[in-house]
Amino acid sequence: MKTELRLGIVGLGTVGANVAQLIERKAELLAERVGRGIRVTAISARDRDRRRGFDTDGMAWFDDAVDLAQNGEIDAFVELIGGSDGIARDAVEAALDRGIPVVTANKALLAHHGVALAKRAAQNGTEILFEAAVAGGIPAIKTMREALSANEVNRVYGILNGTCNYILTRMEKEGIGFDACLKDAQALGYAEADPTFDIGGFDAAHKLAILTSLAFGSEISLESIFIEGISKITIDDIAAATELGYRIKLLAVALKTDSGIEQRVHPAMIPARSALAQVDGVTNAVAVDSDLLGSILLAGPGAGGAATASAVLSDIMDVAGGFVPPTLGLPPSRLQPYLRARMRAHEGGYYIRLAVYDRVGAFASIANRMAENGISLESIVQRKADHKGEGTAPVILVTHETTEAAIRLALEALSKDGHLSGDPQMIRIEDLD
Amino acid sequence: MKTELRLGIVGLGTVGANVAQLIERKAELLAERVGRGIRVTAISARDRDRRRGFDTDGMAWFDDAVDLAQNGEIDAFVELIGGSDGIARDAVEAALDRGIPVVTANKALLAHHGVALAKRAAQNGTEILFEAAVAGGIPAIKTMREALSANEVNRVYGILNGTCNYILTRMEKEGIGFDACLKDAQALGYAEADPTFDIGGFDAAHKLAILTSLAFGSEISLESIFIEGISKITIDDIAAATELGYRIKLLAVALKTDSGIEQRVHPAMIPARSALAQVDGVTNAVAVDSDLLGSILLAGPGAGGAATASAVLSDIMDVAGGFVPPTLGLPPSRLQPYLRARMRAHEGGYYIRLAVYDRVGAFASIANRMAENGISLESIVQRKADHKGEGTAPVILVTHETTEAAIRLALEALSKDGHLSGDPQMIRIEDLD
Repeated sequence: MKTELRLGIVGLGTVGANVAQLIERKAELLAERVGRGIRVTAISARDRDRRRGFDTDGMAWFDDAVDLAQNGEIDAFVELIGGSDGIARDAVEAALDRGIPVVTANKALLAHHGVALAKRAAQNGTEILFEAAVAGGIPAIKTMREALSANEVNRVYGILNGTCNYILTRMEKEGIGFDACLKDAQALGYAEADPTFDIGGFDAAHKLAILTSLAFGSEISLESIFIEGISKITIDDIAAATELGYRIKLLAVALKTDSGIEQRVHPAMIPARSALAQVDGVTNAVAVDSDLLGSILLAGPGAGGAATASAVLSDIMDVAGGFVPPTLGLPPSRLQPYLRARMRAHEGGYYIRLAVYDRVGAFASIANRMAENGISLESIVQRKADHKGEGTAPVILVTHETTEAAIRLALEALSKDGHLSGDPQMIRIEDLD
Repeated sequence: MKTELRLGIVGLGTVGANVAQLIERKAELLAERVGRGIRVTAISARDRDRRRGFDTDGMAWFDDAVDLAQNGEIDAFVELIGGSDGIARDAVEAALDRGIPVVTANKALLAHHGVALAKRAAQNGTEILFEAAVAGGIPAIKTMREALSANEVNRVYGILNGTCNYILTRMEKEGIGFDACLKDAQALGYAEADPTFDIGGFDAAHKLAILTSLAFGSEISLESIFIEGISKITIDDIAAATELGYRIKLLAVALKTDSGIEQRVHPAMIPARSALAQVDGVTNAVAVDSDLLGSILLAGPGAGGAATASAVLSDIMDVAGGFVPPTLGLPPSRLQPYLRARMRAHEGGYYIRLAVYDRVGAFASIANRMAENGISLESIVQRKADHKGEGTAPVILVTHETTEAAIRLALEALSKDGHLSGDPQMIRIEDLD
């Protein structure tokens, strides 16, 4: 048996404590699988005195994570502090500068600085592993980087935020409005007190930025992602989706188009019978379309201490086994510069819900604005007007494939025509064939 | 860049030719990813003169696969001949005896001789990789062996035979009978002229035997699998399943029970809303329940030249990158002896369809035989009798959880009572919660 792998862990919150506990509890299993012992020899966290459910005897304590990265007697460095900058980044850089492999669950760090860190790692003859950074326990990174390594990817997409999926699932299954579902998600610990990062689509965007790089061998470009959150989705939209044979999910999508890479995170209507549509609650899913494999789908827990710890441990065991593949699947010098496709060029079908004043000319305005912009309609449903005051009638349109630019122009013109009460609702349709 | 990896490929059918073509066509991509060139330096197949769509210049030809394994100038050996014994096995053993890593898509070889081969590999300081042997392009092996390496698995299950799933999907969607669907599957090349291996459940059993070993760290035991094929499934069963909120799939399941490991392949009713129920046509799926991750699901193409070649290439690239994990996820000496749970001890719900003569006492016989064996019923549906001659009425029962032993005794007694026309139909219900 080889000498044991000595780990330094910084950040001992839920995931970090879980990882340390599991290394203690499953020592025998882990050693059998990788042919060597794995031991935590150095730790650092905010509060030294907190009890964390594992035996800290024999572990060196460091008040400072960077100090541990620089001076700990370790063979691999595990960063579970989080955040794109500050101490997490400093500590990771310090470990890489020593040539020590880094395991991290930090999506923000990778999404913002992944390429620079991959270069820094390569310069020092080491790499970063980050299975836990995307889709929790689902082996999305390993699959993209290794199982698909001979494939050229056309599209990667998925449900990457459990909070949003929990809210949308409850809205659909129980007919409860967005605000009430969000409150429940907060009470259950699925959503933060400030839920913007999740429900605004930013969390999913961070994960997508990383997947996109692995999918297309391109540099990471978080700032190129078109992001729209779920807070504008109403029960009316959910009911309309059901009627039309769709379900609404916060989808993260990256695909290759003629003009570059299109990256977007937004609520989407997907066919109710698709496998992705069955992904409910806090479950995440990642799907990949590629030249050799066609379509594959991975689904599983997207968060949670044990699932995330499982992903961290899988990376640690790869390191212990001597398997440290290139951070982003390619040597960083071979990553393509990111070429951005404009969102206005996006092509697809659209669902549009309008509240139309019940008056002469209103319907002609809709028909004309669509026609002017070359948009053909697959279906139109007008419901009975609500006749309190000047009544409005809900009108639901589903378009054939068109462009984002055309839809935006049409909706802008429609709004100016003055027949609408409130802003038009628009949800993109993703045909998952 | 390291020296190139020299490959010997034996068997140049659809998959073998695909692999060689892709290594030629994607040479640059593959080299970038693994940091070294990959080149086929030796080949062997039945017919030397056949054109195969890749340039054989510079490749040494061997009439005999074993000769290639023993004498080829190669760093890794790729076996794509197939078959559990004979030349495939001899050649793999010869390569292992030289200490050369083996990549294979041969499920029969692994299912029958996996443990012996793993031992032989370990004795010679090398390993066998076999991603393509189970569920085609889905990274089931990599996920079980690496992503789940810190997990203890409770259950692994899936849809592992594309032919069966294609037939069952068409029966359901188009209301066409089993025989007609099988004929179409044969015409489309999804089923062999002798379809027994697929529709009898044996192909799925081979794949399950391998997954079970990886899941539980146990020795492989193909002969312990309870196997039942799909040929007895009728349109009536499909219609009843739909009505009851289920879909019928050929399911392969391995789980840990108090008395050992239960392995079974049989048609099962699974909840229509489950993700697995959406896996249609020739698509395969593998699901795993484990202590840390909970449930994860992988779905994708289970067969086809390109998808299988993709899996073979993923293994080849692991070898090129120097990553050759233990064949069965553990050193072979650490594999547990297989402890078999008897199928009679299986617990679950059952669907039973009877054709009952429309006469006094028939229903009492059903009720009594169930009660005698401690079986409680969740639902009973009796349809109107068919009144030609001595009419029979279809009766459909759904039981609460009971044992296989109880169901078998009850159905045997019922048959002896003489109120049934024909044999009872019985389909196990798998609650996937």
